[in-house]
Amino acid sequence: MPEQHDEQHTHPGPPRAPHLVIVGGGFAGLWATRALASAPLRITLVDRCNHHLFQPLLYQVATAGLSAPDIAAPLRHILRHQNNVEVWLGEVEQVQPEVREILLASGRRLGYDFLLIASGATHAYFGNEQWAPHAPGLKTLGNALDIRGRLLLAFERAELETDPVARQAWLNFAIVGGGPTGVELAGTLAEIARHTLANEFRHIDPRQARVLLIEAGPRVLPSFPDDLTAKARRQLEKLGVEVVTGAPVSAITAEGYQLGDEFVPARTVIWAAGVAASPLGRSLGVPLDRAGRVQVAPDLSVPGHPEIFVAGDLAALQQDGRLVPGVAPAAKQMGRFVASTLRRRLRGDASSQPFRYRDFGNLATIGRMAAIVHIGRFKLSGLLAWWFWLAAHVFFLIGFRNRLVVLMNWAVAYWSYRRSARIIFGRAGQAQTHSAVDEARSERN
Amino acid sequence: MPEQHDEQHTHPGPPRAPHLVIVGGGFAGLWATRALASAPLRITLVDRCNHHLFQPLLYQVATAGLSAPDIAAPLRHILRHQNNVEVWLGEVEQVQPEVREILLASGRRLGYDFLLIASGATHAYFGNEQWAPHAPGLKTLGNALDIRGRLLLAFERAELETDPVARQAWLNFAIVGGGPTGVELAGTLAEIARHTLANEFRHIDPRQARVLLIEAGPRVLPSFPDDLTAKARRQLEKLGVEVVTGAPVSAITAEGYQLGDEFVPARTVIWAAGVAASPLGRSLGVPLDRAGRVQVAPDLSVPGHPEIFVAGDLAALQQDGRLVPGVAPAAKQMGRFVASTLRRRLRGDASSQPFRYRDFGNLATIGRMAAIVHIGRFKLSGLLAWWFWLAAHVFFLIGFRNRLVVLMNWAVAYWSYRRSARIIFGRAGQAQTHSAVDEARSERN
Repeated sequence: MPEQHDEQHTHPGPPRAPHLVIVGGGFAGLWATRALASAPLRITLVDRCNHHLFQPLLYQVATAGLSAPDIAAPLRHILRHQNNVEVWLGEVEQVQPEVREILLASGRRLGYDFLLIASGATHAYFGNEQWAPHAPGLKTLGNALDIRGRLLLAFERAELETDPVARQAWLNFAIVGGGPTGVELAGTLAEIARHTLANEFRHIDPRQARVLLIEAGPRVLPSFPDDLTAKARRQLEKLGVEVVTGAPVSAITAEGYQLGDEFVPARTVIWAAGVAASPLGRSLGVPLDRAGRVQVAPDLSVPGHPEIFVAGDLAALQQDGRLVPGVAPAAKQMGRFVASTLRRRLRGDASSQPFRYRDFGNLATIGRMAAIVHIGRFKLSGLLAWWFWLAAHVFFLIGFRNRLVVLMNWAVAYWSYRRSARIIFGRAGQAQTHSAVDEARSERN
Repeated sequence: MPEQHDEQHTHPGPPRAPHLVIVGGGFAGLWATRALASAPLRITLVDRCNHHLFQPLLYQVATAGLSAPDIAAPLRHILRHQNNVEVWLGEVEQVQPEVREILLASGRRLGYDFLLIASGATHAYFGNEQWAPHAPGLKTLGNALDIRGRLLLAFERAELETDPVARQAWLNFAIVGGGPTGVELAGTLAEIARHTLANEFRHIDPRQARVLLIEAGPRVLPSFPDDLTAKARRQLEKLGVEVVTGAPVSAITAEGYQLGDEFVPARTVIWAAGVAASPLGRSLGVPLDRAGRVQVAPDLSVPGHPEIFVAGDLAALQQDGRLVPGVAPAAKQMGRFVASTLRRRLRGDASSQPFRYRDFGNLATIGRMAAIVHIGRFKLSGLLAWWFWLAAHVFFLIGFRNRLVVLMNWAVAYWSYRRSARIIFGRAGQAQTHSAVDEARSERN
């Protein structure tokens, strides 16, 4: 393995120090990396994107409130001063525990002494993959730009459509899935239709747009207590969202979707219904749960492989009879926990302690001046909750400049209803969609 | 033509007022539109993008200094209060003067009483179209994101490349064409390699990057006097750019380019050498110049068609033995001039006055703290010229919010050398390129 030897040879970390490979520069992977800044390790962080993404604000990019770079920072830049780390831009295809190597899409192999897999989750259609082209999900910046293009384009198409029925189909929007992402998208889209775009069109009134939020389960934001959920629903309806619960979508086509026994003509459907763990878990050959998550030991290691850890959305861990949720705080805590375990191991202390998730509370934003907050016994909703949510998220944004820009964009959006990123890439309204790019890619490959 | 009747019928402008169609929402088209706010016209502005683009700062998006939305504003939003205008998102395929209609790519036809064609110019390879995939040009936001991806990706590839020769090929950059765009790109790219990326890589030193600016003519920025051009060249070289003049590139492939009898291995070549007018001019059936520009009458109308005007980069007009340059100020002046001519016609005054371009001076930026300014007898270069250029461009940016954000990004970039938009879209470093999107599009059509 010449590459591996070469890599061993030139790694900037302390010579002959054990080699830790971290797959994924999300919250789990990045927080683990930073927590090991002073550790006697040679760390290689591999990600298929060149940036860390602040996922909690991705819906703002999809709804044209923020630019993509506002919520992303280059991993290299974040870690430039951490001398025991190098960053690789590459896609990991397989883990080969028996030889302690990972295999990259480029064909290159990378040996490890310790491995942390934090490749997260992606959206999933659970056997309905044929819905994907008609109902994009929201996990990457590419997805967000795709969705942004579709949302803005729908109003443009409606404006030029002369047939009233076809026109309304362009003004019918459906968001499938009543979790945090679905609620954020629905609330913000309703605001765009009612305020941002009002008076900018001549043939349509954007307020004619119907925004449906469809949840198969009995209520939206099920991770919150009933009373807060009920408040969230009322706030959504106040913003102009039609909330449909207990109704699964049974079909999605280019023309619309099937809801119960009604087929609703709609040209824009967004998928926020399901996530599945990164396929990387499979190559470990250990038990996975139904969503493809790795059932880790209490110390987040992989059963039978004390040198391999899993953190973030890819890890399935029961705590007090409930699964540790796939949220940013849990991912950060897991990342830091793996780092401390590794530091103990390097000191020769092989004792294993169990990870415990500390739940600092649960926030969800709903739209303009609407959110719900649940921290222990403390419950909050409406404007106050929204300011609380805003402060928390801007505070946690990586990169000082980004924080400033985000705050400013929000201030402007808040007072003027203007959204600063209402740009459709590509021409003649053919939005530059992620799927399009994927097509093109498979063309070239 | 039901659509046309429909369009006549529902246009928001004053009933039975003449119908003016403006093709292109650039400087010429947009300034004409705004200057006709109070005119008794029904105006339809057709553009294939949903936004007006501040072209002079496009190179900043390509070099990751600004986000795409920072320099673009939705045409609808800019014109929302102008009640005699409607905005169409669409691509114009043909003008049919004999029936006074334009034909859109959608198949839809639009009749006009007056027509202003301001569809601008695009970059051209002058019979070497096979170079296009290897040497993208810079005219649209899509181009800028393509180039940004290629520039950032080249350093990532070099970092992972183990063969020294192949590695240097990733670190060899060539910008072909010594006009303003080429100079801006070369100067900024040199700054990125020398400062922005320094210390962020482990296996390469980004300062090893070679940035060549190749100009076939005798000097860069030929529109400036010799002494200023010489200063510009020195400033470029101080920034780390190798300037090659009097040397045409005779071939460009995926592996590199042919310069004289030397083939230079280079994985990143950018085309800033030539522009050609929009193909729309051809469908008029009137004389064009070599670059495909329409040879307009002194009042910017099309010979034989007093109801059709051409403004901006698409218009070829001699003044004092020189061609009116294809710059933003000229386009704005032409747009306003056509507007005033139309207002006189509407008052029944058919007298035609000649357009005169007022040259307020010539600015070119070179890179960090380097620029040249030429206003009449007044010449300036270096830091002072750069501040002058900065002030002028931020001042002319459309949209108050954008101005603020752009200023702030620049302030940060200026003090920290950080560039705020260092994001590669797409995954595993497969940059989301414009060409890729075009491929995908032609797939779908």
